[in-house]
Amino acid sequence: MKKSLLALALLSTSALADEGMWMPQQLPEIAGQLKAAGLELDPATLTRLTEFPMGAIVSLGGCSASFVSPQGLVVTNHHCVYNSIAYNSTPENDLLANGFLAATMAEEVAAAPGSRIYVTKAVENVTAEVIDAATAQLTGKARVDAIESNYKRIVAACEEDAGHRCSVSSFYGGLEYYLIKQLEIKDVRLVHAPAEGVGKFGGDTDNWMWPRHTGDYSFYRAYVSPQGESAEYSEDNVPYQPEHHLTISQEALDEGDFVMALGYPGRTNRHRLPSEVENTFEWSYPNMVERFRDNLDIIAAQTVDNKDAELKYASRVAGLNNYLKNRQGMLDSYANSDLLARKKAEYAALTEWVNSSMANRAAYADDLIAIEQLLAERHQRERNDYYRSLATPRLLSVAQALYKLSQEQTKADAEREVGYQERDLPRYRAYMAGLDRSFAASVEQALDFYNLKNYLQVPADQRDTTFDNALGLKDNMSDAELRSLIAKWYVETDLTELATRNELLEAKPSQFADSDDVFIKAAVALYPQQQAEQDRAEELSGNIQQAYANYMKAKIAFMNEQGEAVYPDANSTLRVTYGTVTGRDHGTYDGTAWTAFTTLRGIMQKATGEGEFNAPQAQLDAIAAKDFGDYYVASLDSVPVNFLATLDITGGNSGSAVLNGKAELVGLAFDGTLDSIISDWDFNIDNTRSIQVDSRFMLWQMEQVDDADNLLKELGIQ
Amino acid sequence: MKKSLLALALLSTSALADEGMWMPQQLPEIAGQLKAAGLELDPATLTRLTEFPMGAIVSLGGCSASFVSPQGLVVTNHHCVYNSIAYNSTPENDLLANGFLAATMAEEVAAAPGSRIYVTKAVENVTAEVIDAATAQLTGKARVDAIESNYKRIVAACEEDAGHRCSVSSFYGGLEYYLIKQLEIKDVRLVHAPAEGVGKFGGDTDNWMWPRHTGDYSFYRAYVSPQGESAEYSEDNVPYQPEHHLTISQEALDEGDFVMALGYPGRTNRHRLPSEVENTFEWSYPNMVERFRDNLDIIAAQTVDNKDAELKYASRVAGLNNYLKNRQGMLDSYANSDLLARKKAEYAALTEWVNSSMANRAAYADDLIAIEQLLAERHQRERNDYYRSLATPRLLSVAQALYKLSQEQTKADAEREVGYQERDLPRYRAYMAGLDRSFAASVEQALDFYNLKNYLQVPADQRDTTFDNALGLKDNMSDAELRSLIAKWYVETDLTELATRNELLEAKPSQFADSDDVFIKAAVALYPQQQAEQDRAEELSGNIQQAYANYMKAKIAFMNEQGEAVYPDANSTLRVTYGTVTGRDHGTYDGTAWTAFTTLRGIMQKATGEGEFNAPQAQLDAIAAKDFGDYYVASLDSVPVNFLATLDITGGNSGSAVLNGKAELVGLAFDGTLDSIISDWDFNIDNTRSIQVDSRFMLWQMEQVDDADNLLKELGIQ
Repeated sequence: MKKSLLALALLSTSALADEGMWMPQQLPEIAGQLKAAGLELDPATLTRLTEFPMGAIVSLGGCSASFVSPQGLVVTNHHCVYNSIAYNSTPENDLLANGFLAATMAEEVAAAPGSRIYVTKAVENVTAEVIDAATAQLTGKARVDAIESNYKRIVAACEEDAGHRCSVSSFYGGLEYYLIKQLEIKDVRLVHAPAEGVGKFGGDTDNWMWPRHTGDYSFYRAYVSPQGESAEYSEDNVPYQPEHHLTISQEALDEGDFVMALGYPGRTNRHRLPSEVENTFEWSYPNMVERFRDNLDIIAAQTVDNKDAELKYASRVAGLNNYLKNRQGMLDSYANSDLLARKKAEYAALTEWVNSSMANRAAYADDLIAIEQLLAERHQRERNDYYRSLATPRLLSVAQALYKLSQEQTKADAEREVGYQERDLPRYRAYMAGLDRSFAASVEQALDFYNLKNYLQVPADQRDTTFDNALGLKDNMSDAELRSLIAKWYVETDLTELATRNELLEAKPSQFADSDDVFIKAAVALYPQQQAEQDRAEELSGNIQQAYANYMKAKIAFMNEQGEAVYPDANSTLRVTYGTVTGRDHGTYDGTAWTAFTTLRGIMQKATGEGEFNAPQAQLDAIAAKDFGDYYVASLDSVPVNFLATLDITGGNSGSAVLNGKAELVGLAFDGTLDSIISDWDFNIDNTRSIQVDSRFMLWQMEQVDDADNLLKELGIQ
Repeated sequence: MKKSLLALALLSTSALADEGMWMPQQLPEIAGQLKAAGLELDPATLTRLTEFPMGAIVSLGGCSASFVSPQGLVVTNHHCVYNSIAYNSTPENDLLANGFLAATMAEEVAAAPGSRIYVTKAVENVTAEVIDAATAQLTGKARVDAIESNYKRIVAACEEDAGHRCSVSSFYGGLEYYLIKQLEIKDVRLVHAPAEGVGKFGGDTDNWMWPRHTGDYSFYRAYVSPQGESAEYSEDNVPYQPEHHLTISQEALDEGDFVMALGYPGRTNRHRLPSEVENTFEWSYPNMVERFRDNLDIIAAQTVDNKDAELKYASRVAGLNNYLKNRQGMLDSYANSDLLARKKAEYAALTEWVNSSMANRAAYADDLIAIEQLLAERHQRERNDYYRSLATPRLLSVAQALYKLSQEQTKADAEREVGYQERDLPRYRAYMAGLDRSFAASVEQALDFYNLKNYLQVPADQRDTTFDNALGLKDNMSDAELRSLIAKWYVETDLTELATRNELLEAKPSQFADSDDVFIKAAVALYPQQQAEQDRAEELSGNIQQAYANYMKAKIAFMNEQGEAVYPDANSTLRVTYGTVTGRDHGTYDGTAWTAFTTLRGIMQKATGEGEFNAPQAQLDAIAAKDFGDYYVASLDSVPVNFLATLDITGGNSGSAVLNGKAELVGLAFDGTLDSIISDWDFNIDNTRSIQVDSRFMLWQMEQVDDADNLLKELGIQ
């Protein structure tokens, strides 16, 4: 084996001090590191999900949160409860602008429909059930079908325990599967949120930025039936009494201190192969960035003098902008990194190791070759189908979903495809109901024109004839012809009507077949091909699952041989990451650095009295008067607001409890900095910093500005 | 004595580690501090002005510089030679844009007319001659006249040594006077300047800012007659051979290292009384800021569609903007400081000390009372005369200067007022010649209207009747009448003609008396009152000089008793300041800090390819190619560009040699940061940082980008 290559691989793949989104049960493997870093608890404590502190950690589905009182009080980020604040706001009583504080439990209001609190009750390795002996022999689509069938059986059995939501998650690229069982709390109420000028201070301008001064915290409360069971909202419900809750630290938190974040990170790609990195950063992301920029331009042009349409697309525009900032940030970081070279070196070292012994070669060599070929095939398909994949009009997607749902509903529930079962129906209803509020035909037509024109530039022999015929697309259509064709669809379709969509949610396939609606006709015409495409994709997926799992097995064995534990990529399951409170010796600009904490002074510096920097006057007055209460920190000569740490987090970690070495709450993670975004692919301790709202700021704001005495008391502060 | 007050005074007035613009002869008093800070030379060495290294330090008159080769090569800031680069630029050969490098001495070009290099040859305490026994007995105007007479005699005697320029400078508010004798080198040539995109990189945007990336260095060469004497430009002249020159350090310079700056700081106000601080920050500066903003608005409105006028006022607009940024910076710092309270506490402690013994009381008590009263009188006069003092039209000022010069020229040279002697005439000629390039009647009329309208709002009985009559100003003039009056002046005057102004430079007073020119008639009419005003001002000045000197004597005695040396306020004479290379734990924005060094990376970050951030392509290419030569610093992973230090500098220090503990050149001071500006009044080590261009950047740019091999060789580098 070449020494140099191996050394390089060791250098780059070993889990650095602060890197890693560890499954709780893995923590004993890194107990030495955790202790050395400053964890005072026995790491084994953290493996017990129903004990303290893990029992206090919950998911909101997309955000993380934690119980902070025996009465089911939950703290999370302001941006995680934003929809619930908006849902309860009226022009006369603008809770977003003014904030909200329930003085008593009776004043607590229902969170937005669909709000949930998930309390993880059990995590069980079900790999042997998902990939049972029979499944292990299968390849391609048959393998996918078998996995899906096993998956559904396991989930259904688990959900027989009423009030629980179960799921099977894949770890290490399909090498392991775990069943996650969560109590699903359906009666969620809004308790307290600071004014938007605190909770969203800095807005999009400061998003992913440091220095940061956002009071990104809010409170929910979990309610259950009087019998203590999961229940829909009812006046009879009572606060849920968690077995464990966090307490807020009363001690100093300083630069260099140990911290850990407990939460539900969404998705990372640290274990990807070099070809996946290359395909993503040199093809997918640049193409999507270009397309999304174009989409933003189109929406802007279509909504310029149309306030109604502008409001309908505001959320999509925000999402596109957010995506662009994210992806452009990653592309910039990638351009300034040697990520691909390192990935290739790591992979070369792994390949050498696989080929270095008969046993390794026998175990992994074939799959290492296979996975490269299979990924190359997937990437090539993506490129071939690129314009076609983007060309489906939004209402055609709606029609396709409805028709597929109708087809699946002809089967017994257990036989249906994942995502089309009874348990999924509420999601479809919400989707159909929500469409009107985000849909304007003029905007959709302009987007369709853009997408279809791109698609029509694909040579005719490479286009999708079924699709062309279904929609009436022709070779060499002029722009005017294409525009006129599209306009006609929107005159002829009834899918713009909620009643129509709701009827179709219950309709039989034959009713679709009889429809005259242009999009439904197209959906029916495309269905056989769509199913065939899916089969083809599943054939590839099944083969990839098999080879990818074995690639990961090889990688883990290789790393373990070097004494390194390997954490799985994030997949929205409960994880622990640890690090230290740390600024950065290089800031955004050459010649600057980042301090670990921001202070109330920065709020004064940024406050403009309007827009994204509209700090409440009462807050500014309290700062000016130096009403620091018990939260003054001498070394800062102020109250800390946000702090930086080397925690390894990603989307989904929003709202994560950040604890000190004694497992006391010191803050809530709510963001990373722009050049940390690439950490989803490549963790770089020099650059990557998570941003937390300091619990001392939370308490200061609640005490000195918002007079939330009732909550402070419940939190054990006053 | 109250302990607390004294303790406060001690805390705030003692010279902090890095504070102080020391006269070279004072350095032995602080030898211990200098050694402790890292000076490796014997501090006594620095007291000998004609030995190394002080013999290498020169003044350009307004800027500082130093000899860096035995052939009279002088290094200073790019902005200090800017006029000389502009003077040699043509549209076809734009040296500002492209930079300039004389490949041989023969290619060196004359600096802008009037450029001088002053080599300080002697500094002599002449207090006993300026305030001789007879003068010491005088008060008021008689005292001023006697001091001026002594001053002129001393200077005239000194300047009998041909080729020298002499001056008497007041130290400690008139407590001491020193005769400064300087060799005046009149043949100054431009040797090398980098492109403006290097030497002025960042422009006004970065002025007073950190992070900074300005290559603010350039080279002159001093020439003298073949006999080695000061001489006007001649092709026969030869390079001046200084007895001493600096060498550029070949060693690392790191954060925390000792540095000292040798140069000519212009003016500071550290020893001012509380009433002066209050008058300045709560009256003068706010008023001037308001007025200058108005002036900028007026000039902008008048030049908006007039390119010719815009160019003529460009320099004034830049000056006004610079002034505003400076004064607003000071006012902001003042608002956030306890400066006045500290000044008052210091002064109260001084007063207590004066009153604490019979001897002190006898020596100082009367003058401490007197100075307060005299300053109050001066401040009151300023306020009373405020609108009148601003109301003089520019051409009336010209007429007044010409008429006064004519009056003074009727006397023997030695009898004339300081500023109106033969030695001053070149300055008047330059002033008259330069007027056309900065004058547009339309703009001046608009400014006159603004100033006179303000003045006319002063109640009639408080206005200046002579002034009103001389210009035809009347009570209750309408705007239209005032505009029409002003317009008429500009039709009737000939002072807009250079020929007229030049004739008047030679004219007798009687010729002025016979003139029909509106401004000359007014100048003649105002003259007696102007002289009377001057006498009245001198009466006050004479009394202030006497009392202020004794206040300073008391302050020095008080400080010395506490074991503190006292440095005099800056007055454009040679000074030494020392400190360390140090970033700042708080940057411009809360949550950020400043690192001590910037690097080439920052140039890449800022470069836009145009305007103020137009870095040359060759430089960007060299950075991209990592052509770092010998100047790579591993800890920065780049070449340092600028660095921060705690040096106590001010305007006039531009171009100052910054030396390490071995007196080797490590950089050139060229700026301070915005919240350091108030250090002219109040040095605050937490905030105050000087900005230097790192000598390693200079050499890197010269070697890797500008191919200045001939100079690098002369500097002993290659």
